[in-house]
Amino acid sequence: MRGLMFDSQLLLHSFLWRTERLFADKQIVTRLGPGEYHRYTYRDFGKRARRLGDAMRTLGIGPGDRVGTLAWNHYRHLETYFGVPGIQAVLHTINLRLSPAQQKFTIDKAEDRLLLVDVDQLDLVADLLDLGLPTVEAVVVLADSVPEHRLPLPVHCYEELLAAADEDAQFEEFDEHSASAMCFTSATTGDPKGVVYSHRAMVLQAMCLAMHDKLNMSESQVWLEVAPMFHCNGWNIPHTALLQGATLVLPGAHPSPADYVDIIEDLGVTGMNAAVTIGTMIRDAVRASDRPRDLSTLSTLWLGGQAPSKAVMKWFRDEYDCEVMQGYGMTENSPQICFFALKSTLADGDDDEIYALRQTQGLPIPLLQIKVCDQETREELPWDGQSIGDFFVRSPFTASEYYKDERTKDSMIDGWLRTGDVGCIDPEGYVLLKDRSKDLIKSGGEWISTIDLENSLMLHPKVAEATVVGIEDEKWLERPLACVVPSDPSLTADELRDHLLAEGFIKFWIPDTFLFVPEVPKTSVGKYDKKAIRGVVADEGLERAKAALGAG
Amino acid sequence: MRGLMFDSQLLLHSFLWRTERLFADKQIVTRLGPGEYHRYTYRDFGKRARRLGDAMRTLGIGPGDRVGTLAWNHYRHLETYFGVPGIQAVLHTINLRLSPAQQKFTIDKAEDRLLLVDVDQLDLVADLLDLGLPTVEAVVVLADSVPEHRLPLPVHCYEELLAAADEDAQFEEFDEHSASAMCFTSATTGDPKGVVYSHRAMVLQAMCLAMHDKLNMSESQVWLEVAPMFHCNGWNIPHTALLQGATLVLPGAHPSPADYVDIIEDLGVTGMNAAVTIGTMIRDAVRASDRPRDLSTLSTLWLGGQAPSKAVMKWFRDEYDCEVMQGYGMTENSPQICFFALKSTLADGDDDEIYALRQTQGLPIPLLQIKVCDQETREELPWDGQSIGDFFVRSPFTASEYYKDERTKDSMIDGWLRTGDVGCIDPEGYVLLKDRSKDLIKSGGEWISTIDLENSLMLHPKVAEATVVGIEDEKWLERPLACVVPSDPSLTADELRDHLLAEGFIKFWIPDTFLFVPEVPKTSVGKYDKKAIRGVVADEGLERAKAALGAG
Repeated sequence: MRGLMFDSQLLLHSFLWRTERLFADKQIVTRLGPGEYHRYTYRDFGKRARRLGDAMRTLGIGPGDRVGTLAWNHYRHLETYFGVPGIQAVLHTINLRLSPAQQKFTIDKAEDRLLLVDVDQLDLVADLLDLGLPTVEAVVVLADSVPEHRLPLPVHCYEELLAAADEDAQFEEFDEHSASAMCFTSATTGDPKGVVYSHRAMVLQAMCLAMHDKLNMSESQVWLEVAPMFHCNGWNIPHTALLQGATLVLPGAHPSPADYVDIIEDLGVTGMNAAVTIGTMIRDAVRASDRPRDLSTLSTLWLGGQAPSKAVMKWFRDEYDCEVMQGYGMTENSPQICFFALKSTLADGDDDEIYALRQTQGLPIPLLQIKVCDQETREELPWDGQSIGDFFVRSPFTASEYYKDERTKDSMIDGWLRTGDVGCIDPEGYVLLKDRSKDLIKSGGEWISTIDLENSLMLHPKVAEATVVGIEDEKWLERPLACVVPSDPSLTADELRDHLLAEGFIKFWIPDTFLFVPEVPKTSVGKYDKKAIRGVVADEGLERAKAALGAG
Repeated sequence: MRGLMFDSQLLLHSFLWRTERLFADKQIVTRLGPGEYHRYTYRDFGKRARRLGDAMRTLGIGPGDRVGTLAWNHYRHLETYFGVPGIQAVLHTINLRLSPAQQKFTIDKAEDRLLLVDVDQLDLVADLLDLGLPTVEAVVVLADSVPEHRLPLPVHCYEELLAAADEDAQFEEFDEHSASAMCFTSATTGDPKGVVYSHRAMVLQAMCLAMHDKLNMSESQVWLEVAPMFHCNGWNIPHTALLQGATLVLPGAHPSPADYVDIIEDLGVTGMNAAVTIGTMIRDAVRASDRPRDLSTLSTLWLGGQAPSKAVMKWFRDEYDCEVMQGYGMTENSPQICFFALKSTLADGDDDEIYALRQTQGLPIPLLQIKVCDQETREELPWDGQSIGDFFVRSPFTASEYYKDERTKDSMIDGWLRTGDVGCIDPEGYVLLKDRSKDLIKSGGEWISTIDLENSLMLHPKVAEATVVGIEDEKWLERPLACVVPSDPSLTADELRDHLLAEGFIKFWIPDTFLFVPEVPKTSVGKYDKKAIRGVVADEGLERAKAALGAG
């Protein structure tokens, strides 16, 4: 027996209806330069998003067609988030931080027919076209006018297209399973892997983020979207802001940590989402500033990508009464998997206990199920906070396959996504990841968690950044190596060894080698690039790798 | 092009997974009597809900079968909310306040195969069986044992069934459009109309309630479910509490307003949902108490069914710093349509402006669209706060038809539900209902809103309750008549006339007749029964109606 309910589809433009009707006067603010902001209302935004849909149709884009963007976080990019999926086309946000060869690969694989690009990306686009982009038919420049260029293709001006389009154009209802967007995630080996999101997935996940005890985004918030909009739908922040009518702040092109501090002060930002490294850089920018900085409006700081260090969490709390909340997600999960929330039943814990909880990945969001399975037997493990295994998820917003990619079979197994993370779940349901499965060190038959070592190293007052990787070892097969960026040049390896022992690690876990380096290599999304470090050591040997990494 | 996401279904048992895994130690508390409570954990609840599913299967209940309940708000009734839909059967919560003839109608229409009933309902069930219930095969008594009875059918003991069932039984995945529950709504004319909810509708609506700026229910709350669980899924509070892991408090059988005051004090209740009349009765119970009462833990009071009076709203705020929030819903909408939220852009208003906003029905919840249409031309009207017409809604949780009922065509029109309410929408999107379309008075060609008159009458210090209905008039076709319950016996009709004029009503709107009555007749869900008042006047004439209504 079926329920007798309207079969209204879960479509992103239902959010647009809300913003245009209920929150028309709320603002979207884009930073253009120091102290300079572009502002308009959700009313204007809605009209422009619908105009964009009409313009896309005029350019021959229809249902199922892919449209790529090469753009920073700004209002025009936001318009593409709704204007392209609104006509049932698919928005492919190309990662600005991939290599040109990888970018070409993703554009070819997605078969993008059109590229919408920022002015500062035109040279890159020309280079890509030199490499050959067989599916791309035209380029739209996200600007008031088209500058001189060397593109051998039709090039349109975004603002001219919008001016010529119909602002009364409406988005129709269609199947909620229709693709809305595509992102590519960098793979450990081989080419990037494509994930295709549906309207349904985006709508459901934005609803989860807006819920109490999750991101809890509300209408009254002024939210700064630091995470790149070319990275996994900007962590779904644009959709959630529209759903709730929050003021949305976009940092524009090439933002620096000091720019974020300015924006928070200028606009009274109350919430923000960023990679953990950005959180650390904002702290350092405040410390380096020649005047006191006021971040007191900031009440929610969602840091993702990896576990934030206790030092950073405490700094934001002590300086600005701002709680850092960890959120754990991945491109394959639209992206969110867990959010930290302190259960009322655990709120009596002492400071250390609560910080230990805050360093977990948090609790699974609604509609999502999780499990941990033994890496060899594949059997499900108990939620005892100790049994470590492969971490699996499933939900209506979890990728069921990679786009036209045989590697699907390695990750999507019996209706579950194998995340590639290794960890355990405690009896309360808090997820505690120990490592990416590829980063976990197996040394003399024992598992060594690089994340546990990193977290402890980061607590040392003379350490700015630290990462640990496994390197080949004749006797133990693998041994840990630490790359450390000192904040004080007097730091010695012996101090770090003593520190780790004092933190409770057994001798066998202590890295044999500490490299003091000027910076840790990072991936396109700002995470420590352990693969690169391992690669340098493997290819060059430890002694030459030291030089390659700049180790003193 | 389809998104490549797992096709995980939106099913109520995904909430059960959360409560059992993440909130296992949180409690469900049922009042048994003065100072006496039954408590158990969500862990126990989950096991028992799954046992119930297994027991239902043992009794031959399968997908699509309807199972009726005749029960108060208590933990066993809560178990049926998940145990029955979990096996894809359909829970029909029979309204205890309908007449036996109407109850028989709904049981026959739903074709309930099984009835799950409280001990105090056994006599009623016997009476119903005397009338004949051709589809009912057996009765389960929601108790530890089966008392003596005169039922000519197999009668089972709920606890014995559960004890014999498998607590490891699992609920399978099935189509989210499957029916989960049925409720009947009383019709203006004719028999009750059936609404069939889907799992999808229940899940989506609970997610909306848990969102910020809506009901905002969180894990830390202690929520008292006052709205009857036999009335429209208990306003979806049970589902939302499970989703969020809140402590859920159920008031048990035959609760009185004084009982609610006791429960709030005993358990530190933080949130509560009730009909407006119950809110008023709680205030009166506190006032009548012989000792000071402490309701200071209460921070959210959701009153529904009609607009709460300013007097009641102010009392809760002034006495306990508790904001009364209006929620507007109806059985056909699962039930919620609007919630009040004060936009940050309007928060600067003075007290009167904000109370005027608080007396609106609020803003539409996510996924729901609204419109107001001219009653004659059916054309959509502007959101100007003045253009009054029929109020329509549509969403994935809006009924697309009444169950096997020709009256569908009067209410479900072109993909929208005509709510039967008449009102306008202001430029900010706040909904302001003026009347049920059937209650609106058309007098000499002018519309008169009975709700506006009632709200003003209720502000008079000597008025406890007031309702206004239209009665036939030779000259004007219809004229307003007010039924008033005085809180002070010195109240006169002239005082009320002067009060309404002072409140700004034109003379033509002032009721010709004020009846002072000991109580206003109410419907089975506690609303003023205007139909009954009009009926008495129409059938008996005004003079004899005065006697029938007890007017002094």
